[in-house]
Amino acid sequence: MSKFWSPFVRDLEPYVPGEQPKMARLVKLNTNEHPLGPSAKVIEAIRAAADERLRLYPDPDALELKDAIATYYRVKTDQVFVGNGSDEVLAHIFFGLFKQDRPLLFPDITYSFYKVYCGLYDIDYRPVPLDDDLAIDPADYSAPNGGIIFPNPNAPTGRLLPLDAIETVLAANPDSVVVVDEAYVDFGGDTAIALVDRYPNLLVTQTLSKSRALAGVRIGFAVGDAALIEGLERIKNSFNSYPLDRLAIAAGKAAFEDDDWFQRGRELVIEERETLRHALEGLGFQVLPSAANFLFCRHPDRAGADLAAALREQGIIVRHFGKPERIRDHLRITVGRPDQNRELVQALTELI
Amino acid sequence: MSKFWSPFVRDLEPYVPGEQPKMARLVKLNTNEHPLGPSAKVIEAIRAAADERLRLYPDPDALELKDAIATYYRVKTDQVFVGNGSDEVLAHIFFGLFKQDRPLLFPDITYSFYKVYCGLYDIDYRPVPLDDDLAIDPADYSAPNGGIIFPNPNAPTGRLLPLDAIETVLAANPDSVVVVDEAYVDFGGDTAIALVDRYPNLLVTQTLSKSRALAGVRIGFAVGDAALIEGLERIKNSFNSYPLDRLAIAAGKAAFEDDDWFQRGRELVIEERETLRHALEGLGFQVLPSAANFLFCRHPDRAGADLAAALREQGIIVRHFGKPERIRDHLRITVGRPDQNRELVQALTELI
Repeated sequence: MSKFWSPFVRDLEPYVPGEQPKMARLVKLNTNEHPLGPSAKVIEAIRAAADERLRLYPDPDALELKDAIATYYRVKTDQVFVGNGSDEVLAHIFFGLFKQDRPLLFPDITYSFYKVYCGLYDIDYRPVPLDDDLAIDPADYSAPNGGIIFPNPNAPTGRLLPLDAIETVLAANPDSVVVVDEAYVDFGGDTAIALVDRYPNLLVTQTLSKSRALAGVRIGFAVGDAALIEGLERIKNSFNSYPLDRLAIAAGKAAFEDDDWFQRGRELVIEERETLRHALEGLGFQVLPSAANFLFCRHPDRAGADLAAALREQGIIVRHFGKPERIRDHLRITVGRPDQNRELVQALTELI
Repeated sequence: MSKFWSPFVRDLEPYVPGEQPKMARLVKLNTNEHPLGPSAKVIEAIRAAADERLRLYPDPDALELKDAIATYYRVKTDQVFVGNGSDEVLAHIFFGLFKQDRPLLFPDITYSFYKVYCGLYDIDYRPVPLDDDLAIDPADYSAPNGGIIFPNPNAPTGRLLPLDAIETVLAANPDSVVVVDEAYVDFGGDTAIALVDRYPNLLVTQTLSKSRALAGVRIGFAVGDAALIEGLERIKNSFNSYPLDRLAIAAGKAAFEDDDWFQRGRELVIEERETLRHALEGLGFQVLPSAANFLFCRHPDRAGADLAAALREQGIIVRHFGKPERIRDHLRITVGRPDQNRELVQALTELI
């Protein structure tokens, strides 16, 4: 605490990202990174952009990237907003769209950054409990509200809502912005971008960190009605004119142009996820259905904290949240490369 | 305007960055970029970092970059904050340190993003007029305030305050944070980083966009007392865990390790600035003393708007602000490569 801080800073509870350990030999299954490196065409595009032009500012509108996203999803360029990772995009959404008189609604078990943004921008919120199967029930999102946000599939559960359930929420809340955070949708869901032309209150966010294997480059985006995008641009242009640098713009554009790599990558993850789920179930784990690149599971006979600690001793890092109480014993395990998944199963076989 | 926006968004007046024109052959002297491309070692470092590791998140603390900056300026790593360009660093400073009961003070003619941040975060401010020579008078910064910020050298004037004048402001305001925004200091001033260990209320910001020729990569930083840095980290970690990507961290580190390139680059700019000043004065321009990589000047017989428009017709872009009234006829001209500066002078010779 310092007398020089703005008073509200004292009460902030910052987000704690998954650990990025510096140990050398490590099976890192804790932050949902892609098991493969990014497309070779992305690497090439970055190297080609790394030249004397770096002395010049990037395009503040990142139009080449917006155009590539718009083309990929068959929307207009003015329906696309881009940012320095989807966390920055979400921050601008909370400030620019969710600072309202009525409370924001989101699941009680979900991406833990949401409540941090509420703290940062002084936004009132009401957590909506997941049902007994740790699923989102669309019928629970009809109370008066100043906005709604949930990941689909949800994190850390991995559970997916079908598009008709999302339409139920949209139709019940025509005066609120509904944000569907699709960080993991490419691993098994249908994107709600298909609905943006019919629902002016829908905003869909995605990231290139997961299914495009670019966590190290920081690119996120949102797609929705042009009026929502304009609100976000006003915030962005009052915060930082150039959030995406020349290298990120080139990388993102190349990523959307290499659909072969993308399809192969996600098929690998989906196959490996099902193999891993089968193996975990064989060891007695209860595994939630997952449409993401991770599995959320617990073993009926073993405390989650103990399992996470025992794996860690063998250089295998998974994510254990520990709270709230309902997920005290759950582990969130990223689907890794085939050899990493086998190493995990081998270690668990010895521990159980 | 949309009913879905947070109410305050309607009243935002976003920052307008200098134009990034897409014309092919252009003498671009409007956004103070470096005339040279960045160090070859920086390009190499980026290319070396562009590999399969991009699938992994960057270090959220960017410690390699912070260490390089700390070593360069002989401070401790916990005295260094880094961000996605100094604009992002400044945004966090305004929110995290300047949201106080009393008004923020800054010059009436200065970096126009300051008042935009005040609009974004609802911060009260009071502009302090420059003196008759368009200089900052330290004696004017003694009114009760919730913080003080000014660029040194100031932008768009280019005028420099010596360190003893900065100490006058620091000593008169022991209970306020004083931010010295040193975007341009490497082109002719002494950095106030030399004072941070004696003044816990001092925060110095810098950017790699200008003197390190990396506008296209977006790296900025702040140096000050560890307690000030901790306040900024709390904001950053409530906003975006990973504002600097793997490529930017590698680029920034390499930039601070290549002092030869840095010294040669700034000597070139300083020499060219003095040559250009001499030529402009020969044409009858009144040119303010500049310690930056630009010149702020007016011609007694010609309207600034007309000159800027006439240059533009010849593919030469300079910055004309037009307001406030006192600088209506001034042009801010970036010091370019020798051939660009000659082309500018030739064009002006024909126009005057």
